[in-house]
Amino acid sequence: MKIKGKTILLDKPVYVTGHAGVAGKKEGEGPLAQDFDAIFDDTTVGQQSYELAESALLKDAIIRAVSKSGVSFSDVNFVLSGDLLDQCMGSAFALKDLNISSIGLFGACSTMALSLANGAMLVDCGAECVVAATSSHFCSSERQFRFPLEYGGQRPPTAQWTVTGAGASVLQGQGDGIKIKALQIGTITDLGITDANNMGAAMAPAAARTITDFLNDTDTKPSDYDLILTGDLGFTGSKLLHEITELEYNVKLDKNHKDCGMLIYDLKKQDVNSGGSGCGCGGSVLCSHIMKQMEKGKLNKVLFVATGALMSPTSSKQGNSIPSIAHAVLLEA
Amino acid sequence: MKIKGKTILLDKPVYVTGHAGVAGKKEGEGPLAQDFDAIFDDTTVGQQSYELAESALLKDAIIRAVSKSGVSFSDVNFVLSGDLLDQCMGSAFALKDLNISSIGLFGACSTMALSLANGAMLVDCGAECVVAATSSHFCSSERQFRFPLEYGGQRPPTAQWTVTGAGASVLQGQGDGIKIKALQIGTITDLGITDANNMGAAMAPAAARTITDFLNDTDTKPSDYDLILTGDLGFTGSKLLHEITELEYNVKLDKNHKDCGMLIYDLKKQDVNSGGSGCGCGGSVLCSHIMKQMEKGKLNKVLFVATGALMSPTSSKQGNSIPSIAHAVLLEA
Repeated sequence: MKIKGKTILLDKPVYVTGHAGVAGKKEGEGPLAQDFDAIFDDTTVGQQSYELAESALLKDAIIRAVSKSGVSFSDVNFVLSGDLLDQCMGSAFALKDLNISSIGLFGACSTMALSLANGAMLVDCGAECVVAATSSHFCSSERQFRFPLEYGGQRPPTAQWTVTGAGASVLQGQGDGIKIKALQIGTITDLGITDANNMGAAMAPAAARTITDFLNDTDTKPSDYDLILTGDLGFTGSKLLHEITELEYNVKLDKNHKDCGMLIYDLKKQDVNSGGSGCGCGGSVLCSHIMKQMEKGKLNKVLFVATGALMSPTSSKQGNSIPSIAHAVLLEA
Repeated sequence: MKIKGKTILLDKPVYVTGHAGVAGKKEGEGPLAQDFDAIFDDTTVGQQSYELAESALLKDAIIRAVSKSGVSFSDVNFVLSGDLLDQCMGSAFALKDLNISSIGLFGACSTMALSLANGAMLVDCGAECVVAATSSHFCSSERQFRFPLEYGGQRPPTAQWTVTGAGASVLQGQGDGIKIKALQIGTITDLGITDANNMGAAMAPAAARTITDFLNDTDTKPSDYDLILTGDLGFTGSKLLHEITELEYNVKLDKNHKDCGMLIYDLKKQDVNSGGSGCGCGGSVLCSHIMKQMEKGKLNKVLFVATGALMSPTSSKQGNSIPSIAHAVLLEA
């Protein structure tokens, strides 16, 4: 690989040879319903806790992606996965019976881009086959980060709705189809936002930084991409992203920017306030809808930039700001 | 890199060009006191919470390692770091002002081996300089995983004492000194242990699996190493490790096995029950005492195998078993 500024240019393309995005009931009632590889109407996915339900979703997405790629689990060198739960419980319990070498990641909602980016570098380095994956679940996240579900706390307009869903992609050095050609590992950015009900505002500066760094390093402009796709900035964060890139970096993100958190729900009808969030938001939308659009020829060059808010319930209670990060992956059909 | 079984053989050695291990007061009263790069007698490290104290330790270790390597922060392509706290808060707040591309990892107490292993692969792949790091803090861990400190809960003989400390190593493709030549990303292993006060028993099977897989893949035996060093199995886990490798795998771990959790404290005098634990245990011991022994010519070939118990407070309260993992890194002087 070659390093240009903060951007990694891969020596040869890394291929996405299999991918799957799965989702829960509410997501299955949204605009992307027909593109998900599976929709689970049972919020518990038949498990004894919401946390284990999240693990079941993630395991399901991984199995579907591996199956679609045509490889077997014994061909997989590493699985790279992480999630939002304390100590990444979602991933540990999803992977524990799959018998694969596991690289645990933590990037909060940026995890799909982090796992694809790190995974693509490992394939560039000689790994034959890796799986990049992530998940989130509304019920496990809500009680982890905010309030018990039963409490029925009111949500401000800036709040986002954690997606119940998971995404997984199989990466290999050879194949055909979608290619990863470049990537960027993000730098933690913290402008002092402390409101855990306004993740979009906390994460937008990190997205602006990574997107503009990537454009500079590759000497490209927004119109060179069919789509610049953020993970889960939602309505509030997306608006801020456009303002920051224009005012701070003099880059105008035109209509080719979209956000998975605004694509996955009907914001007018589904009562999700500012839109979707969670690792599973970018994960499920990228690995189903977007990759299917690319395979159908409707999108060619997609810059996927997933953002993560690196706060914990403890750091929020202690009044700390919310450090954020955004990782980027360039996908081409 | 070449893949043999589960083991990665690097094409050319990756060099540890700087390293530092820092520790707290209790660790500074133990047998390794003179080898730590810094000892912080103030448990809060001047911060407003134990969590931010942990971040301060980690940041200190990273700055020392980078300084010793002679590189500047702008030369660092990636820092790879993780810790035990919810949402890896320790790492996020340590790194947020350092302005480096950050790969967040989660491997619980295995993180020092995971960050070295993933980092070494990235250097093998073309990164010029990466930092691998991790931390833990007795006070932040105790209230995260067990009880509020003020509660004064009794500790069973199998319990371990979370190390207050951090370790960091700078890895580069060129240099002299300690070399990483091979590594193994572990596979999650779960034999059904549910007792969060017996981490050693939960993690020993993962260590046995990774050590024996590594020996098989490299066609070596324990006596080929000056030291097989586990991260934090403690007394209970180390005894179990010897039993499992002998009974299950027919491999006798001779006296050249040591455990950082037993090296860092005087088990007879320091009232730590089964020994030290935490990401900072393997991290601080490896990056100070062990690497200094290697540089002095007292140790040549060291197989570092750090184990992680991938449970969360939630998974333990729900009665789930403790999935565990062990990653390995082969270091040569």
